[in-house]
Amino acid sequence: MAIIVQKFGGTSVASVQHIQNVARKILATRAAGYEVVVVVSAMGHETDRLVNLANEVDFQESSARRELDVLLSTGEQVTVALLAMMLMKLGCPARSFTGPQAGFVTDSSYTRARILNIETSGLASALSAGEVPVVTGFQGADEAGNITTFGRGGSDTTAVALAAVLKAKECQIFTDVKGVYTTDPRVVDSARCLARVTFEEMLELASQGSKVLHSRAVEFAGKYQVPLRVLSTFDDLDFDNLPGTLITNEEESDMEQPIISGIAFTSDEAKLTVLGVKDIPGIAWRILGPISEANIEVDMIVQNVAADNTTDFTFTVARNDYDEARGLLEKVARDIDAREVTGDNKIAKLSMVGVGMRSHAGVASRMFEVLANKSINIQMISTSEIKISVVIAEEYIELAARALHAAFELDLESNPKK
Amino acid sequence: MAIIVQKFGGTSVASVQHIQNVARKILATRAAGYEVVVVVSAMGHETDRLVNLANEVDFQESSARRELDVLLSTGEQVTVALLAMMLMKLGCPARSFTGPQAGFVTDSSYTRARILNIETSGLASALSAGEVPVVTGFQGADEAGNITTFGRGGSDTTAVALAAVLKAKECQIFTDVKGVYTTDPRVVDSARCLARVTFEEMLELASQGSKVLHSRAVEFAGKYQVPLRVLSTFDDLDFDNLPGTLITNEEESDMEQPIISGIAFTSDEAKLTVLGVKDIPGIAWRILGPISEANIEVDMIVQNVAADNTTDFTFTVARNDYDEARGLLEKVARDIDAREVTGDNKIAKLSMVGVGMRSHAGVASRMFEVLANKSINIQMISTSEIKISVVIAEEYIELAARALHAAFELDLESNPKK
Repeated sequence: MAIIVQKFGGTSVASVQHIQNVARKILATRAAGYEVVVVVSAMGHETDRLVNLANEVDFQESSARRELDVLLSTGEQVTVALLAMMLMKLGCPARSFTGPQAGFVTDSSYTRARILNIETSGLASALSAGEVPVVTGFQGADEAGNITTFGRGGSDTTAVALAAVLKAKECQIFTDVKGVYTTDPRVVDSARCLARVTFEEMLELASQGSKVLHSRAVEFAGKYQVPLRVLSTFDDLDFDNLPGTLITNEEESDMEQPIISGIAFTSDEAKLTVLGVKDIPGIAWRILGPISEANIEVDMIVQNVAADNTTDFTFTVARNDYDEARGLLEKVARDIDAREVTGDNKIAKLSMVGVGMRSHAGVASRMFEVLANKSINIQMISTSEIKISVVIAEEYIELAARALHAAFELDLESNPKK
Repeated sequence: MAIIVQKFGGTSVASVQHIQNVARKILATRAAGYEVVVVVSAMGHETDRLVNLANEVDFQESSARRELDVLLSTGEQVTVALLAMMLMKLGCPARSFTGPQAGFVTDSSYTRARILNIETSGLASALSAGEVPVVTGFQGADEAGNITTFGRGGSDTTAVALAAVLKAKECQIFTDVKGVYTTDPRVVDSARCLARVTFEEMLELASQGSKVLHSRAVEFAGKYQVPLRVLSTFDDLDFDNLPGTLITNEEESDMEQPIISGIAFTSDEAKLTVLGVKDIPGIAWRILGPISEANIEVDMIVQNVAADNTTDFTFTVARNDYDEARGLLEKVARDIDAREVTGDNKIAKLSMVGVGMRSHAGVASRMFEVLANKSINIQMISTSEIKISVVIAEEYIELAARALHAAFELDLESNPKK
């Protein structure tokens, strides 16, 4: 019998009532002829509650990270017990598994552990006994038996990893949205839920602010070729016509690739520029070294050589790192004898993503034309094979998203065939 | 270095502030030259919260008990993580252990598992690394790795069991009262905290309604000869003059045994009588069989033979079992051709406990005299080697407790020497 792995996030299991809804989804999947393995997150705001308790203790040293994992792992453990009980109440044999019980062996990097191995004999024996294994997301144990967690997006990763080792037909990620949209439907009314998207596109969309799936789970699914579906817990599950977005390989897709699959954008950004930097080897490292030492993540980086043998060096950071990064940069600028540091924390980033770009020239110029027609000034540009990102003033971001969505006809189902 | 096992109950770890207080107690114990192993319960009302979630699912079958244990065990896991973090913050190396990590191997009787073995190598290596092991109370795993819990009083049992296998100098149970009292201090103002009491006396007091320690932990401590101390989390810990009550062997006690150590009483009782029962073999079984089949626990049982070859058979049950037990008994009475069933759910039970009774005659008659002087009618009497219990009308219970406490001079420190 084919296996489907189903993962339900925190909003899908926020209450016992929600958990009953989840149990009915699982029953429907079994009724459709599949074996089901379930992965669940902590209920609603439970993880926040646990983090707040840890913050109250206020111990920052890295040696506390082992204990943070012991603490946080309880959230999912509560959910698996309740869901297994609920399934049994509805007449479906079920058995909960903590991460270690499910066989997740990880390294010892507490709070961000990597999966080394999954020993599936426990899950297999539950499946062969006709039970639904209900597995805690986001956790395992190292070889010494210490509890570890996987960090952000960890429950998605759990589900994808299980789907890979169990050779599941599909890994279904149930969430509170209908799937992956062409862009944020809260901003662009005509945003459309995509039926399919490639792993590569999904990766770019995820890293560009689309919050549906964490990059790590998508990478994992791509690497192990696990068909991944994002769908809503609150929609009906019709197996003849599955809802949501299927994330799969480009080659497997039977339709012509669209030029652009989606537009992702985020306002949570700031940019910093060092002006008049001597253009000598090692200068980028001298500028960014202190930033990364302070654990500030840098996103886009742009450097242009000017005529006078100096350069302007610009990069973006998360907005709440802006003040600290600017302080560090002022010091660096004096050390390297740069002219000036400028910055702007009222910017936003917008990315157009699509594997079709590979074979279609002119996407960038068309994008710039659309923005120019709306008098939107482009401050930074960065490109990859399947993505073009621009930085613009924050106040224009919604206007830009709507204009590009319409210009590239993302609202039309027929768009791929253009 | 001598080991002390310290157990902190739910009220002692009700908040992060409380947990800091607990951490300071542990530091003081280390400063006094001991190695410390800590056992903690779930925070405050956390177990109630988890039980309520399970009740919301409302699945009663016994197959859900495995999942109930998965659920409930998270409560203690949260506390060990927070306490280990707090200890590290205060500069004391520490490491949390779940029940399975601490080596508690149990049978598979979910929600009431028995400890089969404790594999202490993990705890030993933490101790030899100078760390304080912080262990979840009330839980372990069976040989297949399923999580199990020990039922009521389970965290006390965890602490006593660890003290036994680690050959600890003392097992200290920190609670919200100062120790074991001669009687309930909420009822008798002059109730006195006992410096010492024997395991046997404590067992009788515990089973007679003294809520300080669960019988199972006391039995365990007696069996393995673990000196057990009950003391308050909210008092200072002076190792030259330890507070609380030490529960120990009769022989080890260097003072003469008191005649009476304490008076326990409970109002949560009801009695049932079958009148005019034929006094033939097997009749007690025919009466009590249906009661125990309904899982109703019977406490005192009294039977007197009358002149006409019939007998009156009386027993007590918990008050909330009264109606069900009475219904069952009416049916039994018809079957065995008994004359009548009577009952009273406004009764209370009072027990005087003391190993000194063994060598002192006249305790019972003195007790009855005191009650008679207050015009309190005794409805039932039951005795053991170190205990006399009586059933009286509930309305007299506080008066009886005060009168007996005074008459036997339990308020006087010199009482043992009488």
